[in-house]
Amino acid sequence: MILRMDRLPIELPTPKNASPNDAAAIQELLGGKFGEMSTLMNYTFQSFNFRGRKRLRPFYDVIASIAGEEYGHIEVVSYAINLLLTGQTKRGTNPVPAPLAPAVDARLSYHFAASAQTALPVDSMGNFWNGQNVFSSGNLKLDLLHNFFLECGARANKMRAYEMVSDPCAREMVGYLLVRGGMHVVAYARALEHLTGVEVTKLVPVPELSNKAFPETRKYEENGLHRKLYTFSQHDYQKAGLIFNGPHPEDGKPLEVVFGALDGFPVPDLEEEPQLNSPGADHIDMQMFMDMAKKMGIKY
Amino acid sequence: MILRMDRLPIELPTPKNASPNDAAAIQELLGGKFGEMSTLMNYTFQSFNFRGRKRLRPFYDVIASIAGEEYGHIEVVSYAINLLLTGQTKRGTNPVPAPLAPAVDARLSYHFAASAQTALPVDSMGNFWNGQNVFSSGNLKLDLLHNFFLECGARANKMRAYEMVSDPCAREMVGYLLVRGGMHVVAYARALEHLTGVEVTKLVPVPELSNKAFPETRKYEENGLHRKLYTFSQHDYQKAGLIFNGPHPEDGKPLEVVFGALDGFPVPDLEEEPQLNSPGADHIDMQMFMDMAKKMGIKY
Amino acid sequence: MILRMDRLPIELPTPKNASPNDAAAIQELLGGKFGEMSTLMNYTFQSFNFRGRKRLRPFYDVIASIAGEEYGHIEVVSYAINLLLTGQTKRGTNPVPAPLAPAVDARLSYHFAASAQTALPVDSMGNFWNGQNVFSSGNLKLDLLHNFFLECGARANKMRAYEMVSDPCAREMVGYLLVRGGMHVVAYARALEHLTGVEVTKLVPVPELSNKAFPETRKYEENGLHRKLYTFSQHDYQKAGLIFNGPHPEDGKPLEVVFGALDGFPVPDLEEEPQLNSPGADHIDMQMFMDMAKKMGIKY
Amino acid sequence: MILRMDRLPIELPTPKNASPNDAAAIQELLGGKFGEMSTLMNYTFQSFNFRGRKRLRPFYDVIASIAGEEYGHIEVVSYAINLLLTGQTKRGTNPVPAPLAPAVDARLSYHFAASAQTALPVDSMGNFWNGQNVFSSGNLKLDLLHNFFLECGARANKMRAYEMVSDPCAREMVGYLLVRGGMHVVAYARALEHLTGVEVTKLVPVPELSNKAFPETRKYEENGLHRKLYTFSQHDYQKAGLIFNGPHPEDGKPLEVVFGALDGFPVPDLEEEPQLNSPGADHIDMQMFMDMAKKMGIKY
Amino acid sequence: MILRMDRLPIELPTPKNASPNDAAAIQELLGGKFGEMSTLMNYTFQSFNFRGRKRLRPFYDVIASIAGEEYGHIEVVSYAINLLLTGQTKRGTNPVPAPLAPAVDARLSYHFAASAQTALPVDSMGNFWNGQNVFSSGNLKLDLLHNFFLECGARANKMRAYEMVSDPCAREMVGYLLVRGGMHVVAYARALEHLTGVEVTKLVPVPELSNKAFPETRKYEENGLHRKLYTFSQHDYQKAGLIFNGPHPEDGKPLEVVFGALDGFPVPDLEEEPQLNSPGADHIDMQMFMDMAKKMGIKY
Amino acid sequence: MILRMDRLPIELPTPKNASPNDAAAIQELLGGKFGEMSTLMNYTFQSFNFRGRKRLRPFYDVIASIAGEEYGHIEVVSYAINLLLTGQTKRGTNPVPAPLAPAVDARLSYHFAASAQTALPVDSMGNFWNGQNVFSSGNLKLDLLHNFFLECGARANKMRAYEMVSDPCAREMVGYLLVRGGMHVVAYARALEHLTGVEVTKLVPVPELSNKAFPETRKYEENGLHRKLYTFSQHDYQKAGLIFNGPHPEDGKPLEVVFGALDGFPVPDLEEEPQLNSPGADHIDMQMFMDMAKKMGIKY
Repeated sequence: MILRMDRLPIELPTPKNASPNDAAAIQELLGGKFGEMSTLMNYTFQSFNFRGRKRLRPFYDVIASIAGEEYGHIEVVSYAINLLLTGQTKRGTNPVPAPLAPAVDARLSYHFAASAQTALPVDSMGNFWNGQNVFSSGNLKLDLLHNFFLECGARANKMRAYEMVSDPCAREMVGYLLVRGGMHVVAYARALEHLTGVEVTKLVPVPELSNKAFPETRKYEENGLHRKLYTFSQHDYQKAGLIFNGPHPEDGKPLEVVFGALDGFPVPDLEEEPQLNSPGADHIDMQMFMDMAKKMGIKY
Repeated sequence: MILRMDRLPIELPTPKNASPNDAAAIQELLGGKFGEMSTLMNYTFQSFNFRGRKRLRPFYDVIASIAGEEYGHIEVVSYAINLLLTGQTKRGTNPVPAPLAPAVDARLSYHFAASAQTALPVDSMGNFWNGQNVFSSGNLKLDLLHNFFLECGARANKMRAYEMVSDPCAREMVGYLLVRGGMHVVAYARALEHLTGVEVTKLVPVPELSNKAFPETRKYEENGLHRKLYTFSQHDYQKAGLIFNGPHPEDGKPLEVVFGALDGFPVPDLEEEPQLNSPGADHIDMQMFMDMAKKMGIKY
Repeated sequence: MILRMDRLPIELPTPKNASPNDAAAIQELLGGKFGEMSTLMNYTFQSFNFRGRKRLRPFYDVIASIAGEEYGHIEVVSYAINLLLTGQTKRGTNPVPAPLAPAVDARLSYHFAASAQTALPVDSMGNFWNGQNVFSSGNLKLDLLHNFFLECGARANKMRAYEMVSDPCAREMVGYLLVRGGMHVVAYARALEHLTGVEVTKLVPVPELSNKAFPETRKYEENGLHRKLYTFSQHDYQKAGLIFNGPHPEDGKPLEVVFGALDGFPVPDLEEEPQLNSPGADHIDMQMFMDMAKKMGIKY
Repeated sequence: MILRMDRLPIELPTPKNASPNDAAAIQELLGGKFGEMSTLMNYTFQSFNFRGRKRLRPFYDVIASIAGEEYGHIEVVSYAINLLLTGQTKRGTNPVPAPLAPAVDARLSYHFAASAQTALPVDSMGNFWNGQNVFSSGNLKLDLLHNFFLECGARANKMRAYEMVSDPCAREMVGYLLVRGGMHVVAYARALEHLTGVEVTKLVPVPELSNKAFPETRKYEENGLHRKLYTFSQHDYQKAGLIFNGPHPEDGKPLEVVFGALDGFPVPDLEEEPQLNSPGADHIDMQMFMDMAKKMGIKY
Repeated sequence: MILRMDRLPIELPTPKNASPNDAAAIQELLGGKFGEMSTLMNYTFQSFNFRGRKRLRPFYDVIASIAGEEYGHIEVVSYAINLLLTGQTKRGTNPVPAPLAPAVDARLSYHFAASAQTALPVDSMGNFWNGQNVFSSGNLKLDLLHNFFLECGARANKMRAYEMVSDPCAREMVGYLLVRGGMHVVAYARALEHLTGVEVTKLVPVPELSNKAFPETRKYEENGLHRKLYTFSQHDYQKAGLIFNGPHPEDGKPLEVVFGALDGFPVPDLEEEPQLNSPGADHIDMQMFMDMAKKMGIKY
Repeated sequence: MILRMDRLPIELPTPKNASPNDAAAIQELLGGKFGEMSTLMNYTFQSFNFRGRKRLRPFYDVIASIAGEEYGHIEVVSYAINLLLTGQTKRGTNPVPAPLAPAVDARLSYHFAASAQTALPVDSMGNFWNGQNVFSSGNLKLDLLHNFFLECGARANKMRAYEMVSDPCAREMVGYLLVRGGMHVVAYARALEHLTGVEVTKLVPVPELSNKAFPETRKYEENGLHRKLYTFSQHDYQKAGLIFNGPHPEDGKPLEVVFGALDGFPVPDLEEEPQLNSPGADHIDMQMFMDMAKKMGIKY
């Protein structure tokens, strides 16, 4: 079970020069083979399916902790997409002037036909994320090797998304994910080291270009986010530190386990888009709910 | 972001008469079009994509709360599948006597080829769950109508899964889901009532057979679980009560919003299956980790 | 079995300002999850699969009648796409000047590679329509609820297609479908009312924007097409009137059942596109067939 | 547009020795790559997309006529599947004794989970029919060659389905389809002959085994159904006879065009399956509708 | 088993006016339903699956020979795509100036996200090639008929790709494939003639436009490549000549079987694209390997 | 380009106790995510797409050599499936006694409906192999890491297939593939070692169970097949030895590069299955071809 927080791990700046096609490109980081839906679901299923948990608890705790974090990653990518798409067509309720005309030339028409200029579990070509992206063999060494590879593949994708889209909202998000994804790479490498004695962390970084080439990563690395594993749990997964420890392979600073989650920031409020009938429900206003709350003795 | 708990909403009994094909049938409730992956991802994306949240907060809170709960549902279905599959082939490390021979006639070979007798995001035919199952139009009335339909369709699937599999582990889980899913049906019906004034709750139950026909639902209904919406959050989504209120359409008892999650029960420990090399890592024992923990000053 | 007519329900105007991407956008109404292939196949399979037809005949007759109409809808959407695409590349048989060059930047390359600038059972992203879009649970209440939702979802899609494409050929077709689809919404709502006593028709319209906002709907509504259910059969499905009756939820005028089909209009003749080798067969002319007909005593 | 008839082309006998797996095997003839959904949709789209219709009308009329017939073929295969599945689980409303237990070992679980023991647009492996099965190049010679091949491939599938399933209901249906599909093979071969002068009909039969090896084909061939093309239209497609003429390649009897459809037989009434909540709606009886009809002056 | 040669069947000119969308269009010839992956895999599986090989050896030899050639076709199409994409984004290792910005508007984003501006087994819409494109019924007549149709469909696709893309690199490749694919059409037609006596070669060409309309085909036809079947084997498949013989249906020159493969040309060397971290490995230089080779006594 | 040999890498024994479901299980090794179609196509596309080949030639030569070998692996798995299926239904041309009745309960109906008891590019659940299984990022380190993981995942699949199926034909093939796949694991590990200095070969074996547990591997390992990389080329890829060298990580014996292919064994002749009309063509006999050959001066 989970407890959800209405907060994002970072504060997303308002987009400055976005286009619908930028949003389409970012979808690769959400619903692509190497997107956050894949990392989330791989580690989630591996944690559900872990055999011999008692004997191998610290490995389980690493996988389960990272699984917990990935939920926040599908969230932050989705919000970045949503912000990139907000305001991309002319607002208004009259359909006659064809307010959605730009959608006709947008690469990802589902953003307009299936959603109200918001995120969907698809990749940059509009192909749907699917469960074939989940690997859960049950052999610990093989699953860890997979996860190490998956995070490296995901890193390559993030680097390329950064090079495609220069909008600051997108880049802030990608910068953050590069740092945290980089930490996940190290975590799985460390787990393999514990298991096999081979210095897998020395393979890092894959691809070779350092996170330092991406300016948005700096403030996060200065806060040590590249070497802190959060448990994303109030009470559990705390034995992850038996594996996630020692020096970071790039800067040599100590790997740390932090109990709980990041503080985070409030989720952005998404403006209405009436030309998409979103959200509709025009007869309902906040005051109505505030009155109702008062009557029912609910805090508003 | 989320905080994860290493707990399941219910206690799953040890299976008594399971078969691999029972586990295959239950997969429909996990990765089927109307399975828990679908409910989880529909409400999760709808909450990320909600436009006009400030004005319509209580609707958002209902959707986000249920989204939070669904995570525990993919978890409990996965554990039920895992328990149904545990021990279904002969244990041992020697491949020569073909310990996996039963897999050849099992309907869902992925349970043996792709996982170590554990759950995967597939339906009962081995077709992978995919993002086309997510509906997120951004029009609140349409999304709520979808959710109401989705939960009714999911209810039909659960009823049929119950009628297929008589193992107590499976049925305990299905009974619980019928109660909670039934609560979700009511929640979306209530939301539509608030929005439109139409008495949608009177359509319940769909299909017509009552949850009372399923004995495993009783103890949960006696505890009021059919009429309590949990926020599955420490601090957020508490305005759900402005919508989720009034009498339950079947027994007239009051609908209630509860802040936070169920207490839950520890997750089952899944036995090793060496014939599947799961988990492998034979040179690692618990004592090693306990010694390490002692040295590092970590509680074990 | 069916009898086919070489006629369309409406007269499609010649496009004035179409582009290949307009045609791609309209494909969503043909092969999308909420397109006419979906409505056609849902009701068709539900009618084949109807259990207890004798007892529940009027419900069967409603579903079967609408299934019959939907065939004409895949037809009229296809013809609109075909007209939008006709003449979009330079005509001629010489490949050297690259007459299909515009296809390289068109969003939906299948219109040029797989067809000769004509419709295909794909959605606006070129994903193929598939049978997973068919819901046929066999529980009447659940199937009707699905159909009501499906038609509302389809309505949202039509509204958005209208807002994307301003060409008069496309809009004439969408206007007509909004009227007839709106009638289907009402029909399934009425069926649910008969079954449950809940005033489902009062949920209409979903989304909230009225058909009146779309000028092309007017002439059809003036002819009462928003409140007439055609049986699309010479002799069958005539008991639909036991369900489809009472006042229309929006204008209060009486719902009516009409036996048979609309008169319709001749199907447009699609010009040849020699650069696509379509249709080829240059050595064959009409005169040859007329002579042959004369000889064989067949009327031409 | 179409007019639908509540009739099947043949009378289906009650199954005698059916199993759920027989029904699964027959699904290949409905939703398989070479099933009736494919033939229906290929010819339907080719007829919508036909360029140069005026010049090449008789070819159009052949394709459109056969498209019309294929609707009745998806219908008759669906009904055969429905009959094969009717009564395959124990009837009753109590879920506790697991009335759907046989579904757990059935090859095609969707028949029980997604439908109420009825047909779905899937093939024998539960893979959904999809639009990639439609070929519509717009080059007449190529489309006809495709159709000739498609019908031969479909013929091979029917022959194998016959060899898999010995139930008389299934075989009556397959026998009929072999005869009519054989006629379609000849029709497309004749069309190619007209177009090219090559004696394509002499390639028949493909595969080499004659329809005569299948006893159920006899009565249909005695009635000439192997050499009669029906227009499946009241007024249109009558120029098909300019192409479909001459001697049948196997018995030398004359090919004929018949205007209109077969007389057909009433569709079977499918019994209720309460264990699947199908159709539910128990409070509604026929008498209620008869009374209502009386009051409303509608014939019942 | 195979022996691979590091050579292409033709020399590909350097592109002159390519765009990423040109490369996307050409993907249809690689991973489309009628692309070279399909022809390769159809004949490869048919050769593995051939029953009665001893009795029907010459037919087997024809299919196996063409299967061997198709490998070189996926290769040459891939290299054409790779050349068309080379240099399409700004080279450099600094991600900040968004060197991949053009990818955002490219139709096929996988070329940049999943590969380093190189080919993938997808079609022009980014849909993945899949095994459903393989037909292998085991009935020789039906398989040959399929292959004849497949090659004609592939020919139509090539003609259209030619008309879309005017870059000389693409057209050289398409011209070559038109010639060789045309030879395959004739080979399967001849095989059907041997089997049935029907003059299937007289159906050629399908579509009707001759290869002569494509100037790039000329030099290949002058070298007789339209009438020579290569065995693509050192010692095997030499009985193909018992079938592949007689006059070519278009120019009447003799069909010939040639033992072995074409001489071919060296494969192009693909330049590095550092902005895609491709290939990376910057610390490794050729000299290092040359020194190593010297030390190890390996020729470099 | 390739030269094909009509030979398999090993001699396949005649099956002794096979069932159609055994063949279905083995399909995972052909068309599964980790099957031989995947390894073949991954390395093939990586070799086509290799950037910077001149500088990094030895890496290219390793990948291209293994790509060459994988062709023989899809071949040997296909032949094993074909042999396992041969004779699994009653032979004869009369369809009336339902000779294909066993197909109704077989897990993989395509073996009977779509092929004549032969292999198809599907996995053990009948899902089609598709191009999404190909990874070709263009970053050498990432591609090698992928390949190392892919081979380990493939190894796990082979081990499980061995444990499922005890037929000697299947096990001979799996034993061989375990040895050769194990060699590929080492090759990619060595390549990563060259690139990074990390002792990746020490991770071997993954999963932990040694090939020695599988008796069929012994004779191949005794012949050194676990440590010999064949170039599968007459003249190319010979610089692979600059990477593939040093001691084998398990037995310390020297890694070797061998120019060319294995000698191999003749491919098995597959018996006819007349009940599947395979191959048909009954009027053609070998003598006819021998006579023809004599006349034409072709050696038979």
